[in-house]
Amino acid sequence: MSLVTVGSVAFDAIETPFGKTDKIIGGAGTYIAFSSSYFMKNQNIVSVVGEDFPQEMLDKLSNKGVNLEGLQIIEGEKSFFWSGKYHNDMNSRDTLVTELNVLENFDPIIPASYQGCEYLMLGNLSPDVQLKVINRMEKRPKLVAMDTMNFWMDIAMDDLVKAIAAIDMLIINDEEARQLSGEYSLVKAAKKIREMGPKFLVIKKGEHGALLFHGTDVFFAPALPLEDVFDPTGAGDTFAGGFMGYLASTDDISFENMKRGIIAGSAMASFCVEKFGTEKLENLTKTEIEDRIQEFVQLTNFDMVKSI
Amino acid sequence: MSLVTVGSVAFDAIETPFGKTDKIIGGAGTYIAFSSSYFMKNQNIVSVVGEDFPQEMLDKLSNKGVNLEGLQIIEGEKSFFWSGKYHNDMNSRDTLVTELNVLENFDPIIPASYQGCEYLMLGNLSPDVQLKVINRMEKRPKLVAMDTMNFWMDIAMDDLVKAIAAIDMLIINDEEARQLSGEYSLVKAAKKIREMGPKFLVIKKGEHGALLFHGTDVFFAPALPLEDVFDPTGAGDTFAGGFMGYLASTDDISFENMKRGIIAGSAMASFCVEKFGTEKLENLTKTEIEDRIQEFVQLTNFDMVKSI
Repeated sequence: MSLVTVGSVAFDAIETPFGKTDKIIGGAGTYIAFSSSYFMKNQNIVSVVGEDFPQEMLDKLSNKGVNLEGLQIIEGEKSFFWSGKYHNDMNSRDTLVTELNVLENFDPIIPASYQGCEYLMLGNLSPDVQLKVINRMEKRPKLVAMDTMNFWMDIAMDDLVKAIAAIDMLIINDEEARQLSGEYSLVKAAKKIREMGPKFLVIKKGEHGALLFHGTDVFFAPALPLEDVFDPTGAGDTFAGGFMGYLASTDDISFENMKRGIIAGSAMASFCVEKFGTEKLENLTKTEIEDRIQEFVQLTNFDMVKSI
Repeated sequence: MSLVTVGSVAFDAIETPFGKTDKIIGGAGTYIAFSSSYFMKNQNIVSVVGEDFPQEMLDKLSNKGVNLEGLQIIEGEKSFFWSGKYHNDMNSRDTLVTELNVLENFDPIIPASYQGCEYLMLGNLSPDVQLKVINRMEKRPKLVAMDTMNFWMDIAMDDLVKAIAAIDMLIINDEEARQLSGEYSLVKAAKKIREMGPKFLVIKKGEHGALLFHGTDVFFAPALPLEDVFDPTGAGDTFAGGFMGYLASTDDISFENMKRGIIAGSAMASFCVEKFGTEKLENLTKTEIEDRIQEFVQLTNFDMVKSI
């Protein structure tokens, strides 16, 4: 099956307690595409970069089987740039710089070859752009998933509500779920958010794992306990990429299979945080990923032969 | 098999965003004993109360099969009293009042009928008292588990290190693990703490679940996602009680069985927080507990038929 990913392809500069980077490659679209590429080859990206974006990185994505036909390169303009600094606990960060650049007037193009895709992942972007993409798909995909962030709740809530009403699955973190719903309890938040439209909801809790809600079903997957988290940037996107890549490759959106997708996404995210940027994600082997998934099986598996 | 629990039997006054109590019954020993009573009957408590402690509550414990022979009632003195107020996120609290009273000079007595017990749970108390209990057991129990808190790390670190060196399993929360080890990463903290003596370590993460470490094995159990947490007081002790009750009733300290014990303890803790104090814990049915354990199975169970 084919997957279309919409998301930024951009530059980041990151500071964590473990070190500091210059401008490196980042962006939700980049992380999602690298991550899903390990599960399936028929994937396509919709994005925009400036003429400053290195061809070498685009080649790396191509080599992973990512179709770049829907990636616009705008001459005379610069790529999106974000810079942030993580606090000691790695759970919170300050944004130092945000330069929208090419994203400011991003008008997504869906090439004819992308039409008919079954899986659509809308990375964090303006909800107006996310809605445009949904509307420009000639045939409704089997599963439309979307990420967003607090920023859009603050400045574009009306558009965001429309986008959320048009999707099948929202993938956000715990703080975003709380802000979106006005509920502190994630169980209550999940109820309210699903009343806004999406049948499926994933709440990411960073180092504390992720929850999947559908109907009366709930599934929880932990994050892998790691000695060190070097850089959390992109972990949420990497999770989403692994998850959607797994679903698209198996072409099964049953709750049972979504659980497996959550584990696959969690495994990919656990690699992402081990190095700065996309470094670790660029060169994984199938065996490394299989072994990591087995670590999740070991971590969570129990057989309740006798309960009480 | 028989379980001996050492822990406070006391009064609490609690304020949470959901309400406020007068003096109600609390104490680590009380929560542990109520919780473990659902798994096994042959259990014994070592504790101390003042003459102000209601006979009615002691009768309730007796009726649950708890042997009170090792519970001292000190005439002319008052029971331990703690009062605290939880913040809105329920993850942090301020202590308003601590009156040690009978705990100040607590000299634990181990009745002859308790000797030979296979399982010993040392609830949070002065490490000096915890060590005395270990030394007063004529035969080393099969499993000695212990809880503690930051307070003892601040004022009695030398005694605490001695106590930790003498036990098989430490059961503490994430903040305590970080303070004890000086490591932020729980994986690194777990390594350092096990170098201090205990072969087994449980790190409780409140609403984020619990981790069990032994050798190179790690197991993670989530907390049940709940609509409302009314009162977290005693949840950690209730967890420990369910865990030790399960182990003692099955008499199996293999890692596989400990995983089940962690789930049993997590299920009991999820009941504890649904009402103030011990109210919910006093009147559970076997079926309610079985159903709750099944909710944990549903929440975490997946079958990774295809990984990548």
